[in-house]
Amino acid sequence: MEFTIGQIASLLKGKVEGNPDLKVSRLDKIQEGQPGGISFLANEKYEPYLYQTAASAVIVSEEFRPSKSISTSLIRVKDPYLGFTQLLEAYAEFNKAALVGVEQPSFIDESSSIGSNAYRGAFSYIGKNCSLGQNVKIHPQVYIGDRVKIGDNTIIHAGAKICADTQVGANCEILPGAVIGSDGFGFAPQEDGTYKAIPQLGNVIIEDQVSIGANTTIDCATMGSTIIKKGAKIDNQVQIAHNVIIGENTVIAAQAGISGSTEIGKNCIIAGKAGIVGHIKIADQTTIGANTGISKSIKKSGETLLGYMGMEMKSFLKSYSIFKNLERLENRIRELEKKP
Amino acid sequence: MEFTIGQIASLLKGKVEGNPDLKVSRLDKIQEGQPGGISFLANEKYEPYLYQTAASAVIVSEEFRPSKSISTSLIRVKDPYLGFTQLLEAYAEFNKAALVGVEQPSFIDESSSIGSNAYRGAFSYIGKNCSLGQNVKIHPQVYIGDRVKIGDNTIIHAGAKICADTQVGANCEILPGAVIGSDGFGFAPQEDGTYKAIPQLGNVIIEDQVSIGANTTIDCATMGSTIIKKGAKIDNQVQIAHNVIIGENTVIAAQAGISGSTEIGKNCIIAGKAGIVGHIKIADQTTIGANTGISKSIKKSGETLLGYMGMEMKSFLKSYSIFKNLERLENRIRELEKKP
Amino acid sequence: MEFTIGQIASLLKGKVEGNPDLKVSRLDKIQEGQPGGISFLANEKYEPYLYQTAASAVIVSEEFRPSKSISTSLIRVKDPYLGFTQLLEAYAEFNKAALVGVEQPSFIDESSSIGSNAYRGAFSYIGKNCSLGQNVKIHPQVYIGDRVKIGDNTIIHAGAKICADTQVGANCEILPGAVIGSDGFGFAPQEDGTYKAIPQLGNVIIEDQVSIGANTTIDCATMGSTIIKKGAKIDNQVQIAHNVIIGENTVIAAQAGISGSTEIGKNCIIAGKAGIVGHIKIADQTTIGANTGISKSIKKSGETLLGYMGMEMKSFLKSYSIFKNLERLENRIRELEKKP
Repeated sequence: MEFTIGQIASLLKGKVEGNPDLKVSRLDKIQEGQPGGISFLANEKYEPYLYQTAASAVIVSEEFRPSKSISTSLIRVKDPYLGFTQLLEAYAEFNKAALVGVEQPSFIDESSSIGSNAYRGAFSYIGKNCSLGQNVKIHPQVYIGDRVKIGDNTIIHAGAKICADTQVGANCEILPGAVIGSDGFGFAPQEDGTYKAIPQLGNVIIEDQVSIGANTTIDCATMGSTIIKKGAKIDNQVQIAHNVIIGENTVIAAQAGISGSTEIGKNCIIAGKAGIVGHIKIADQTTIGANTGISKSIKKSGETLLGYMGMEMKSFLKSYSIFKNLERLENRIRELEKKP
Repeated sequence: MEFTIGQIASLLKGKVEGNPDLKVSRLDKIQEGQPGGISFLANEKYEPYLYQTAASAVIVSEEFRPSKSISTSLIRVKDPYLGFTQLLEAYAEFNKAALVGVEQPSFIDESSSIGSNAYRGAFSYIGKNCSLGQNVKIHPQVYIGDRVKIGDNTIIHAGAKICADTQVGANCEILPGAVIGSDGFGFAPQEDGTYKAIPQLGNVIIEDQVSIGANTTIDCATMGSTIIKKGAKIDNQVQIAHNVIIGENTVIAAQAGISGSTEIGKNCIIAGKAGIVGHIKIADQTTIGANTGISKSIKKSGETLLGYMGMEMKSFLKSYSIFKNLERLENRIRELEKKP
Repeated sequence: MEFTIGQIASLLKGKVEGNPDLKVSRLDKIQEGQPGGISFLANEKYEPYLYQTAASAVIVSEEFRPSKSISTSLIRVKDPYLGFTQLLEAYAEFNKAALVGVEQPSFIDESSSIGSNAYRGAFSYIGKNCSLGQNVKIHPQVYIGDRVKIGDNTIIHAGAKICADTQVGANCEILPGAVIGSDGFGFAPQEDGTYKAIPQLGNVIIEDQVSIGANTTIDCATMGSTIIKKGAKIDNQVQIAHNVIIGENTVIAAQAGISGSTEIGKNCIIAGKAGIVGHIKIADQTTIGANTGISKSIKKSGETLLGYMGMEMKSFLKSYSIFKNLERLENRIRELEKKP
């Protein structure tokens, strides 16, 4: 889509210096600006680029005084970085809202309903007795199993699979290839060494404003629900096992894994590749470092843990710094042993 | 689906106390029981819920004597937990068996065949010269490449991809998004620093009663076969490289990875995030802990290994307990050094 | 497909001993050879199989002199291993080239174009304003978002998702279930403890001759581009975050993860499950061992790193060998402490 510089200035409550009728259709870095693009200048380190940029417009601060002549148009605002961010958001919102209607072929069981202003992409599948809200965007090749509920404004990206009985709140975003609500990993060992599948009859509940990354997997509960609470943000390739509860506003980075029935508090940060065993509780505001393993409940909130078997961060770093020079330590012992 | 309490009692060989014509359509936890649901009471800790539950029926033991009045119907059986499990299984079986027929549009090459009582979901794809057994359930958006064979009663869930030449046994279950039989990672370094792909012409063989988790990847062999033997259970996001062999009844938890040409024995347990290098053998009944790295063959069966470079578990835990206090160890050396 | 032994000999510039009109349609290991298959004998260890094999033909060296009678046909070439490899490659190439045309139903926006000799599988989706080259193979259930560019001869396997604005070079191969160009994981913490999504408006650029593994995820840049340079080879279930740059001919094994804005040099080798933090640079020709964590830039090229917090390999192995016997070290200290 295209906007005039005047329209953008009006959105940002700023003033145009230059031609307000010039059209832009792209957001560029100032050092890579090209005609048709709009950039911003917030950090004076980048000021030299302003005098060279081919961008059609640059957002600058109200106070900014150029030291050389400028060929691009300017939009003056109070805070150029904030202004640019608003523009990014408006652009993203616009892109999302633009998707409306039904592409064919797509599949929806007649017992299911979807609200107004929705999008259903080609090859998307919606099973029986589903209820999808307004402005919901179901991208191509998405799978929605039976009895799924999805709240208003939620976006399910290409090829994500939302299995039967899952509930997804409003304003959520589920990225491509994520699998929500497939069977948990439950097998009962038999006397002859084989395993028998334990039926997984629960579901997944995802509350409002949750993001789920690409190719992430969240298993349904054995009974009851696996729950991802309001505002949680989950990155790509995360594994969340059956009956786990993730607290409000908890952030989980890529390739982390949470084993069955564990409960994570709110406002926690779990870094990439961290692994947490099953059946434990992690207190609110816990930070768990990259590739850290956690095998016991964390009861005190606000701690930071690190290491193969999650230790308090400072202790771990101290121990690891000695580990790095263990040979020196051994040499000191050898010297002591030589003493008479 | 709905059943009467009488029908369920008959399935479980139990006796009804209350109205046998009441209908239930759901399995509830006793503490969350609602009308239309059936629960069970096996652990006396939960007895107080029996007097409050709104569930339509509760399965109890033959000997159970209530201490207060009860408003729900009872089904008396020998072992209430076992009875409830039977009910879970019957429910799950019923759900699976109910899926029959072909949804449109779906794609099957005319050279391929599929047995009776099968299901092919919308947007599923079946290539050339495939042979699929009876009661096979191919969910929506599943991909089946050329010359694939699938045994009776096997279920392939939404969006799983079974690439060319793969053989899947009977009574298997492959969860959404799994990729079976795509090219192994084989590249020959060239003199100029580039890499040349080594053609991957083998296949994957999955024997009977195997489960494969969501978004798990199993590569085809370079030549010959990558083999997952009978009864193996593999969780979500596991990576199994080309020419690997997984033994009978071996269990592999989420996010573990097995490198090329490694052979895992039978009845092993491999915990989440464990990593095993290529070209080694792991003895039967080996247990490999979470996030453990294994770089050498394990020859003695029945061992438990743990740690970044897989050690026998007790040794690792001993070493790690000292590692946690390495500073104290260093202080003791410093004290010794101060001695005259 | 079938070829005569004479046709194959002609391809390999070899000579037939036996019937040149016999047909073969399969490549077999010599110890598993069956009628209709062709094998090779390069290592004398396998010579005994030559006298037993049921393969229709075996490729041998020009100099080879059998010690017993042979029932199979021979193709004599200079280097039998090289010859067989050429055959493998020809076979693989043939298989790929054979896929031409459009299966229905498939979806392509009328604003998009695709070159000659291409393949579009059933249920594949191509959005608006895409430009796809000659010989491009789009397998079933592939998703191609708006404004995607794909170079000649590139193959996108079943169910891979190439999101909007991604650019893929020529001669690339993207395996099933990979997700390229979905939103990066960027959220700005708000004062009330919630997070706000930062719009991700950049793209992914994949240069020529790149391979991407099954279920791998590569995020689009926040602004600008995430770049995978020429000749890089990336295995299954790898995670590459927004604004990462991967250098030419760098190889990344399964389940490794690279955090945002990190720049990896050329001709690096990153082993399975390795994790690299964001905003650092890794020098050319760096080797990073399996499950290694890297938290600082590597400035010297040609190093090999290993361990939970990436150390130079030899130092790590030395430290780890002492760690394995930390109890013995502690005992030595205890003995010293007992001295008067």
